[in-house]
Amino acid sequence: MKCLFCDISAGKKEAHLIYEDKTHIAIMDKYPIQMGHSLVIPKEHHEKITDMSTENVSLLFSKVPVVVQAILKATGADGFNIGQNNGRAANQIIPHVHVHIIPRYEKMNNPWKRRMIATDEELKKLSNKIKSLIELR
Amino acid sequence: MKCLFCDISAGKKEAHLIYEDKTHIAIMDKYPIQMGHSLVIPKEHHEKITDMSTENVSLLFSKVPVVVQAILKATGADGFNIGQNNGRAANQIIPHVHVHIIPRYEKMNNPWKRRMIATDEELKKLSNKIKSLIELR
Repeated sequence: MKCLFCDISAGKKEAHLIYEDKTHIAIMDKYPIQMGHSLVIPKEHHEKITDMSTENVSLLFSKVPVVVQAILKATGADGFNIGQNNGRAANQIIPHVHVHIIPRYEKMNNPWKRRMIATDEELKKLSNKIKSLIELR
Repeated sequence: MKCLFCDISAGKKEAHLIYEDKTHIAIMDKYPIQMGHSLVIPKEHHEKITDMSTENVSLLFSKVPVVVQAILKATGADGFNIGQNNGRAANQIIPHVHVHIIPRYEKMNNPWKRRMIATDEELKKLSNKIKSLIELR
């Protein structure tokens, strides 16, 4: 079975990587709801968090604050949503567990619809900024 | 400072409790987006996950699969969303960290708006069902 996030984790497909360690990566969402919208992804393939061990769910979410802090600094966002969808009924598009981090701004509309207007150049620039702000682990 | 979730954790305010251990509780959301919509809440007061230690963020999310499994069994949901809002800009209403678990159904509309029509009786009945399905810890 072909899996986009397995391919990105294995370096077989390109993405704007902002974090990587032995077990997880974080990348920019290609269709951001807001600029800075990123995904934390375990390298091991599971469809839903209910398919993972409790320890691995813990480990996955322990990566989130690390990435969030850098995104907040890079974007100047006032708040952020964490989202994690399980199953088609819950609007999960890629069937490989991932956690959405979505920066939010007090003076802006904060829709849930995808903007779809981030250019590759914009994503690259912001991903480099975030990456540089994430403390090396 | 008065805090609703501190009061519920301390047993000073009522709620439909579905889980409790030394450090966390889970309750039915009083204004559910879908029936079964529940919240996992650390007893210790912090406003955002960025105010918590990484260990405590891990611990919080380790409770989620435990509660999710019982909600799925109790409701027969096909999928579920995990959501966690930080800051007013991100639509956080109660400024005490909490994780939303929202069951989703393939044959239903799955809006993000709150239904606001769950009766106390409905919540009580479902909370008892979920509670009985959560393995004792």
